[in-house]
Amino acid sequence: MWKGRFKAELSQEAVEFSSSIAFDGRLYEYDIQGSVAYAEALNRAGVLTDEELRLVLNGLDEVRSEIKEGKLVFDESLEDVHMNIEAMLTEKVGDVGKKLHTGRSRNEQVLVDLKLYLKEEVKRIREGLRSLCRVVVELADGNMGVVMPAFTHMQPAQPVLLSHYLMSFFWAFYRDLQRLDFVEKQVDVLPLGVGAVAGTTVEIDREFLMRRLGFSALTHNSMDTVADRDFVLEFLFWCAIFMSHVSRLSEDFVLFSTPFFSFLKIPDEFSTGSSMMPQKKNPDMFELARGKASRVYGNLVSVLTLVKGLPSGYNRDLQEDKERLFDSVDTVKAVLEVLVPMLKGVSFDAEAMRSACRKGFILATDVADYLVKKGVPFRDAHHIVGRAVRYCLDEGKDFSSMTLEEWRLFYPNADEEIKDYLCLEAAVQRRKGVGGTSADSVREQIRKAMELVGEGGGK
Amino acid sequence: MWKGRFKAELSQEAVEFSSSIAFDGRLYEYDIQGSVAYAEALNRAGVLTDEELRLVLNGLDEVRSEIKEGKLVFDESLEDVHMNIEAMLTEKVGDVGKKLHTGRSRNEQVLVDLKLYLKEEVKRIREGLRSLCRVVVELADGNMGVVMPAFTHMQPAQPVLLSHYLMSFFWAFYRDLQRLDFVEKQVDVLPLGVGAVAGTTVEIDREFLMRRLGFSALTHNSMDTVADRDFVLEFLFWCAIFMSHVSRLSEDFVLFSTPFFSFLKIPDEFSTGSSMMPQKKNPDMFELARGKASRVYGNLVSVLTLVKGLPSGYNRDLQEDKERLFDSVDTVKAVLEVLVPMLKGVSFDAEAMRSACRKGFILATDVADYLVKKGVPFRDAHHIVGRAVRYCLDEGKDFSSMTLEEWRLFYPNADEEIKDYLCLEAAVQRRKGVGGTSADSVREQIRKAMELVGEGGGK
Amino acid sequence: MWKGRFKAELSQEAVEFSSSIAFDGRLYEYDIQGSVAYAEALNRAGVLTDEELRLVLNGLDEVRSEIKEGKLVFDESLEDVHMNIEAMLTEKVGDVGKKLHTGRSRNEQVLVDLKLYLKEEVKRIREGLRSLCRVVVELADGNMGVVMPAFTHMQPAQPVLLSHYLMSFFWAFYRDLQRLDFVEKQVDVLPLGVGAVAGTTVEIDREFLMRRLGFSALTHNSMDTVADRDFVLEFLFWCAIFMSHVSRLSEDFVLFSTPFFSFLKIPDEFSTGSSMMPQKKNPDMFELARGKASRVYGNLVSVLTLVKGLPSGYNRDLQEDKERLFDSVDTVKAVLEVLVPMLKGVSFDAEAMRSACRKGFILATDVADYLVKKGVPFRDAHHIVGRAVRYCLDEGKDFSSMTLEEWRLFYPNADEEIKDYLCLEAAVQRRKGVGGTSADSVREQIRKAMELVGEGGGK
Amino acid sequence: MWKGRFKAELSQEAVEFSSSIAFDGRLYEYDIQGSVAYAEALNRAGVLTDEELRLVLNGLDEVRSEIKEGKLVFDESLEDVHMNIEAMLTEKVGDVGKKLHTGRSRNEQVLVDLKLYLKEEVKRIREGLRSLCRVVVELADGNMGVVMPAFTHMQPAQPVLLSHYLMSFFWAFYRDLQRLDFVEKQVDVLPLGVGAVAGTTVEIDREFLMRRLGFSALTHNSMDTVADRDFVLEFLFWCAIFMSHVSRLSEDFVLFSTPFFSFLKIPDEFSTGSSMMPQKKNPDMFELARGKASRVYGNLVSVLTLVKGLPSGYNRDLQEDKERLFDSVDTVKAVLEVLVPMLKGVSFDAEAMRSACRKGFILATDVADYLVKKGVPFRDAHHIVGRAVRYCLDEGKDFSSMTLEEWRLFYPNADEEIKDYLCLEAAVQRRKGVGGTSADSVREQIRKAMELVGEGGGK
Repeated sequence: MWKGRFKAELSQEAVEFSSSIAFDGRLYEYDIQGSVAYAEALNRAGVLTDEELRLVLNGLDEVRSEIKEGKLVFDESLEDVHMNIEAMLTEKVGDVGKKLHTGRSRNEQVLVDLKLYLKEEVKRIREGLRSLCRVVVELADGNMGVVMPAFTHMQPAQPVLLSHYLMSFFWAFYRDLQRLDFVEKQVDVLPLGVGAVAGTTVEIDREFLMRRLGFSALTHNSMDTVADRDFVLEFLFWCAIFMSHVSRLSEDFVLFSTPFFSFLKIPDEFSTGSSMMPQKKNPDMFELARGKASRVYGNLVSVLTLVKGLPSGYNRDLQEDKERLFDSVDTVKAVLEVLVPMLKGVSFDAEAMRSACRKGFILATDVADYLVKKGVPFRDAHHIVGRAVRYCLDEGKDFSSMTLEEWRLFYPNADEEIKDYLCLEAAVQRRKGVGGTSADSVREQIRKAMELVGEGGGK
Repeated sequence: MWKGRFKAELSQEAVEFSSSIAFDGRLYEYDIQGSVAYAEALNRAGVLTDEELRLVLNGLDEVRSEIKEGKLVFDESLEDVHMNIEAMLTEKVGDVGKKLHTGRSRNEQVLVDLKLYLKEEVKRIREGLRSLCRVVVELADGNMGVVMPAFTHMQPAQPVLLSHYLMSFFWAFYRDLQRLDFVEKQVDVLPLGVGAVAGTTVEIDREFLMRRLGFSALTHNSMDTVADRDFVLEFLFWCAIFMSHVSRLSEDFVLFSTPFFSFLKIPDEFSTGSSMMPQKKNPDMFELARGKASRVYGNLVSVLTLVKGLPSGYNRDLQEDKERLFDSVDTVKAVLEVLVPMLKGVSFDAEAMRSACRKGFILATDVADYLVKKGVPFRDAHHIVGRAVRYCLDEGKDFSSMTLEEWRLFYPNADEEIKDYLCLEAAVQRRKGVGGTSADSVREQIRKAMELVGEGGGK
Repeated sequence: MWKGRFKAELSQEAVEFSSSIAFDGRLYEYDIQGSVAYAEALNRAGVLTDEELRLVLNGLDEVRSEIKEGKLVFDESLEDVHMNIEAMLTEKVGDVGKKLHTGRSRNEQVLVDLKLYLKEEVKRIREGLRSLCRVVVELADGNMGVVMPAFTHMQPAQPVLLSHYLMSFFWAFYRDLQRLDFVEKQVDVLPLGVGAVAGTTVEIDREFLMRRLGFSALTHNSMDTVADRDFVLEFLFWCAIFMSHVSRLSEDFVLFSTPFFSFLKIPDEFSTGSSMMPQKKNPDMFELARGKASRVYGNLVSVLTLVKGLPSGYNRDLQEDKERLFDSVDTVKAVLEVLVPMLKGVSFDAEAMRSACRKGFILATDVADYLVKKGVPFRDAHHIVGRAVRYCLDEGKDFSSMTLEEWRLFYPNADEEIKDYLCLEAAVQRRKGVGGTSADSVREQIRKAMELVGEGGGK
Repeated sequence: MWKGRFKAELSQEAVEFSSSIAFDGRLYEYDIQGSVAYAEALNRAGVLTDEELRLVLNGLDEVRSEIKEGKLVFDESLEDVHMNIEAMLTEKVGDVGKKLHTGRSRNEQVLVDLKLYLKEEVKRIREGLRSLCRVVVELADGNMGVVMPAFTHMQPAQPVLLSHYLMSFFWAFYRDLQRLDFVEKQVDVLPLGVGAVAGTTVEIDREFLMRRLGFSALTHNSMDTVADRDFVLEFLFWCAIFMSHVSRLSEDFVLFSTPFFSFLKIPDEFSTGSSMMPQKKNPDMFELARGKASRVYGNLVSVLTLVKGLPSGYNRDLQEDKERLFDSVDTVKAVLEVLVPMLKGVSFDAEAMRSACRKGFILATDVADYLVKKGVPFRDAHHIVGRAVRYCLDEGKDFSSMTLEEWRLFYPNADEEIKDYLCLEAAVQRRKGVGGTSADSVREQIRKAMELVGEGGGK
């Protein structure tokens, strides 16, 4: 299509190396949408007559249907989806098809295709993420009252409500939801109508194109437009940060489903066995989800590296952004599709969690609180309790088996009130500030969350 | 400070391996700010009396001054800035100092320090970035009328105004400015008051802390709070995308300052020579700026990798985020500090740019436009002009030396009007849509830009 | 196949999420090779009778043929290539097929498949790389005598032979060749025979398996074996460093083919045009090759991230290594396939290179050499020539137009001999040490290179 | 030093942005070594007289001592360590100092400095790594006989010897040791003597320089030499892969030291507490080591990105490689320094490990082995045992409490021999092939390992 000035055909090696139709074919629907709008704009600009427009629109419609039905197939030697569709159209409608590219460049076409595609996928991902948020909140809501240890450094730290633990994921995912809105805004800017790099000489009404294609704003500078891949990077980074949250949840659930914790059971429907060891029930889906964080990280790194040090204008290197983008879109959607039903099926073992709270002197901070209440400066209280812990370790005891006399070895004024500080439920309830683990605080979190992502709520 | 339960001192190897004071010492000002507010909150909660509060505040004030003056120096064996300052305070005010940590954990303290620090640095970076934006607009405004080739694939594509080219960077940097606002909002959420991981048992008024420390919102869940490093990642990604823009500008300017382009001269004040080759004047600052994109990319990758697969709660791995964050902050600030004055000093060579437009048949698209105007479908017009280009290459000619007869070899109906399409200025002016390179369009870009970042305008 | 202990079938979502057959199907040939050898080992261990062995081998043979011919197709619900082939075999040969997995685990099977696959691909890549090396040497050999500027900081530095420039790529690619041998040695270690994680209870003769499958060594520890992905990382890093070399060559060739340098012409067969701009001839293949460096970098980052922080033993996350590995293998092979014929077709413009040497005072170091020869300390000589350069710039002169009188403004003792230092050929010839650009040195490089990679030479 | 052709001084912003002395100052010793050898080579080439050589060598000696003693301090405005030392020398010895740079360029100087530095550090790292290997072998040797569960998917898989588990790390670290030899060979190639980019005009004897500075080979091409950073990348990748092994060990040890596993105790000397929770004993050193994998990954990514798409010759971007290199060197050395004594102090809890083997039906594969021995095809045996596991789970039993009658529900021919397959020790002993966990196999591993890294053994 661009061969006028060339004396030789592109070699087969070059065709194979550079053709993108194998992966950008998935954009055909968006390419056609863009061409429909562009044809209308050409008509308004006087480049296409009404009759020509009608021909082009019908032609594009037929092309779309026939691709969908598998009647038309892409030709590798036509390089990309844009050239393939232009050729299909021209095949159908003749010379009029050759007018469609008037004043238009593939540099902008690929951008409008990618943005239309991404707007659609962002919508789907948002729906999946909202479902995920809701499942988490429902799990939290349905498991109120269960106490478990919270960990720092993977060592038992303090008791919390299981619901509080679950809600910690809600807030991370909710940040992802907010961030997705921001990403969408970056995508939602029409690139079409800027030509190859300098603007177009045809009187294309870009405001019309913007409305017609459902964008909210226009790009401001043709050179910036054709070089800009910020929106791709933003989305890839979004995937990276979201998957980092998924990897945290996965790491937890892999550990918590071992017989050493036994905090939860992953449903059989989402576990696999071993080809060799008959007893095995493995948390493969969580492991894969954790592993897929690496995949989307790699995609981000690829595209960041791609744009580093590229000069202004369009450079063919940029073709490499598409597969990375598609892979991250597909990965995130796949993760959402498996996570939502899998989490719904997870069952928690309240007894195992409670008995886990007997390990690791989980109420030590509360005993220090008791001492502080008695007037001991916190740093001294910390030291006193630390010594009591060491005593217990040496004696093979735990706090619940300490007598008042034994406590008095460390704090001579110890009295019966200390018992009030050795109760899991009381410890949980005493953390009642905003963001704390008390039942009231957690219920408030759940209420707010439902408001934000519940059926009626949110965006 | 936490040694009650331990029987042995931390080994020297472990101290050296784990101590962070060598790099987190730079947070001391923010650590003290956080402690001042926290002491006031403890007073409101009845943990500190008014007199104790007064002592603590005076003590913290002294500590701050003495650190600033170099009278107090940090002790590696006290691990981090938090423990160092608590020890300094206790040294000054005695037992009262030991109360300051009541209900507070280093897990939240490091977060509030980091966020206060980052809020401050984001402000400085915004100022630098606004200056950069303004310099770019001023250059564009001051160089109206100069024509240069725009490139795609690094080959001459179409003529544009130098001002249009310069404005292409403005819009990229302006996206960075908007993105920075989003990042700032993510940072602007108070973590303090959530304890180690489960919330705090002290009646800390987090709303008070929020207002007192100048935050706009509160975190919602203690477990999410202590594990969350999204705000660090967001900032590191911000740096990555900003530096990708800087690397594009740098790549261009490195190339454009070679004697092969000679489009611009970098001032002597920002160029260096060679230790061996006396003639050399090298664009080192632009090369370094390009190279530093790699550095901030690496920092982002580090912290993404850091959080991948970490379990819930605070894990000591997270200590590794700080040096990467500081390095990106320092790098971006250094880049802004050198770019702004350097760009001001760059001089452009209008003649070299204009003569460069004679290379590469830069008006070929315009000739195709002429044919389209004559009724040739665009795809055919493209082919005809392509053949004319091939002819010129074979004959050693360019378009300006083609006679009407020669044009008619390719398009029999060619007439004098074709000359109107072989003029650089006309070509520029005909790209007059939104985002195009015509003088009006560029002036409109400049006007809008001044509104957005001018002295009075913007945020 | 592992469903004995499960009460529910794997959900469709989980099947789709975890099945790897869509991409590991490409390993079928290697999986069958591994199974053939393993069946023989089972026979030697007395687990399979001779008759059973015959059945199994025939069955595997049939499976292989039928997959090749497309008669057998993979079933997504059977998870992976290993289970698919076991099921196909059992379908063909009945109960005997169920014995094949005795004492064997997929954990080791996937490793032996991957290593057999990679050994094969490394061979192909080595052949391609040797061809690339040879083409570079042939270009160097065929273009002796052409002088061009060498650049530092992209500014003209000193004159070199084009052949010297070309040979600089040879040495980088030759390092890749050596590194590939090292990578191959890491791959060439048999994992089979270690069971799932603890070793196998069947008396498998691993030395036999090693010889039978063409490996050179055995792994030493079953737990290390199933967790180890070092060989994948080594290969991915190999791809990264090789592609960094390709990206340097590509960057050069993109720049050198612009009309501003015109040092070389890329053949039409490896250039593409623009859909919009009829004059365009773009160096797309080099741009894509440069861009693909990013792709293989991302793959390396993915797998590094994947293994970071994974606990001992096999973890399902590791499944994610395969697509990244395949993608890098495919990318590198595609790059080699296009680079070799494309480089053969590149033509160099000796005149353009020579005239480029007139820019940028490229002989300044040689003039300093002249002064040193006259007894001026080098640092002073450098300064004197620097001032002469400044004078020329102010006066619009270059060194060739300086009179002896003018030289004496800077160095009073200047004499006619200075002219000998203002000749490109002489400058080239004077750099005659090992690694220098003199013709003799370059011929020596070419000789050595032919020895290393010539038809008869090398490995 | 290169200011002859410039009219203006470098601005303060540019000095601060580009000066590298703050970090490359650490190379001073190697810079002086390089200069000593180069001065001798200049003397042999007739550029320095014997007397001048003596002056220069004495001067360099004094500079070295005075830097060491802190009497001489670096000057930021002199850019880098090379210029600083040249200036210090000239200050001491006058005009002769100005001759030292004859025919030499900073481009090669920085390379020889970096390579001398890295050769030294590689030696130190090798020593540390050999110590680490030895500690691991000693732990394995000293804990023979202890049985623990091996995991796959973090679920109990099969019993192994603790010593086998420990040896799995030995083999990974031993691969690192071998790889380090390869890296060292890449570093061990002299770059000095190639000038700025084209070779040198002085008759420098590079073979002499090679021997004098202790290198084993010469670079072959000046242009390749000054652009090449492969050896930096190789080393950074080495660090990445080594740290991935450290991160695996760390992940294990963090988990195994929780009260849920209790497999091991980290000595108090290498654990830290909490500022808030008095009971805490955290595995901080292992967490930090795991986290530091991210750091060295980021460094590798930085330098890979740095070299991507750079044109030939030296480009100033490359300055950015140094800090990344130094950071990885420092990190790896710090990790080795803490790991070696820490591992020595770890104590293992044989009882806890043994009792952990009661979880998760760890002998299921052995029961399947029993059935295979009885003639059941493996795949059927797998299924039968799987159903027995399900039965136990439903009934709240484990294998040790199953009666023969119960076994017969699943396999009617079950007899007393099945008991032999329900013994941990027997299960371990039956895995006796190369790489298996039987005591003999592990002793053989230990023997081989001592040969490879023992005091007398190895390199």
